Amino acid sequence: MKNRRSFLQLSALGIAGTLSNPSFAMQSAPKSVEFPLGFAGYSFAKFNIDQMIAMLQKLNVKNLSVKEIHLPLNSSVEAIEAAKKKFADGGINVYTLGVIYMRSKEAVDQAFDYAKKVGVNMIVGVPLPELLEHAEQKVKETNIRLAIHNHGPEDKLYPSPKDVYDRIKNFDARVGLCIDIGHTLRAGVLPEKAVKDYKDRLFDLHIKDVTAMAKDAKVIEIGRGVINYPAFFESLGKINYQGMCSIEYEKDMSDPLAGMAESVGYVKGIMRG
Amino acid sequence: MKNRRSFLQLSALGIAGTLSNPSFAMQSAPKSVEFPLGFAGYSFAKFNIDQMIAMLQKLNVKNLSVKEIHLPLNSSVEAIEAAKKKFADGGINVYTLGVIYMRSKEAVDQAFDYAKKVGVNMIVGVPLPELLEHAEQKVKETNIRLAIHNHGPEDKLYPSPKDVYDRIKNFDARVGLCIDIGHTLRAGVLPEKAVKDYKDRLFDLHIKDVTAMAKDAKVIEIGRGVINYPAFFESLGKINYQGMCSIEYEKDMSDPLAGMAESVGYVKGIMRG
Repeated sequence: MKNRRSFLQLSALGIAGTLSNPSFAMQSAPKSVEFPLGFAGYSFAKFNIDQMIAMLQKLNVKNLSVKEIHLPLNSSVEAIEAAKKKFADGGINVYTLGVIYMRSKEAVDQAFDYAKKVGVNMIVGVPLPELLEHAEQKVKETNIRLAIHNHGPEDKLYPSPKDVYDRIKNFDARVGLCIDIGHTLRAGVLPEKAVKDYKDRLFDLHIKDVTAMAKDAKVIEIGRGVINYPAFFESLGKINYQGMCSIEYEKDMSDPLAGMAESVGYVKGIMRG
Repeated sequence: MKNRRSFLQLSALGIAGTLSNPSFAMQSAPKSVEFPLGFAGYSFAKFNIDQMIAMLQKLNVKNLSVKEIHLPLNSSVEAIEAAKKKFADGGINVYTLGVIYMRSKEAVDQAFDYAKKVGVNMIVGVPLPELLEHAEQKVKETNIRLAIHNHGPEDKLYPSPKDVYDRIKNFDARVGLCIDIGHTLRAGVLPEKAVKDYKDRLFDLHIKDVTAMAKDAKVIEIGRGVINYPAFFESLGKINYQGMCSIEYEKDMSDPLAGMAESVGYVKGIMRG
């Protein structure tokens, strides 16, 4: 829609005439990039695994970051296999696990063991800073990537993406970030800037919207808040982002379906608009 | 998002250099137009007036075309006043009534009398063709506009917008069209073309999505179907459309909220994308 407008504008400026075939610029204009959508499992904290799968089907979103609420970290192999069958039967792609908090070496080991059993190649996690080297070791051992999640201004460990990046930038390249764009904005950082600044370590995204660029901002349906989604997706296109955009919806958690659906619709519209 | 991309593309083609200040084209790019959203009352056919108001509040959409399911055509003045108070208290703007089918002179008279009592300045209606002159007379008498609704290939009266337009183009300028873009596409006409072709008589829109450009296409969440929403809104911008975009959601009518919300989100995203 805007391609044509900007072309018309260039025409008005007398520039388009320099094209031998003025329609060429329109016809060959790149399509918007459509990034694959997912959901962060925490969005379904009040629902069981079957309800979550039904909701994802209704939302027509296939990719899921599984939270331990729906599949405990200490699950038996049998329980994990049963859950995997449910997801497969429901057409759900479990692409990562988390957010997993890791407060001891044993917790790090457990997380990687769990990920191996589930069969994913990435964990979204929050290891204590003193455990980062051990976690890096596990990444090397297992070839499972670790995307560290920032949790906003009240988070003592990793409030903003920079706080993650500065600690891991010299680590193995399979240690990176899951940028939570809501917490990022609340920490005073524009998501459209953060994804560019840390693009070489950006593995995953939790997308959402918030009411203000302030610590005490509230979560809200995507599109009703202040995050500049057109600019954000423009940045993702520029950095050629290859990961998922997982919606983490934390409003109306007992009755979230309408807000989730509005968020899904808005994000699709922005990507195609 | 696309402005910048198309500018970069022009740069690659060696054209942008003819601009003395290359950033000018981006900075002065027009913003997307945001058209006001509404809902067609038929979407809430399975719900009562209180439930409908609650659903509209949840969807954060204020404008409503009231269907007689929720306020019968033969309502007393008291019943109309009571309903108007409910809408006002709920923050809902009743901007029109309909779709009202008019199969006799008395039905035309009743519709305009009803509209006067409700206090709207437009009716969305379907008068039999032989009643159009009488309806025009009522428009002149009451200064209430009449937007005639097309209902797709199986409609013997007005399958596509042209079938309305050709009958009313020489009528009083307050007789016009409510283009239903789903029925229009099913009738083989592109909505982005129809709104331009009949722009001088385009008063209202029922927006939706359908699974194919075919008579037997099914309705679906906006964004999941085949209607080219970016092109459609581009056309609305070009014709400087001044009316509402009312979503008519006819899928899952017993449990429509998630689909409605996805549709609202998608339309907002397209307009801002």
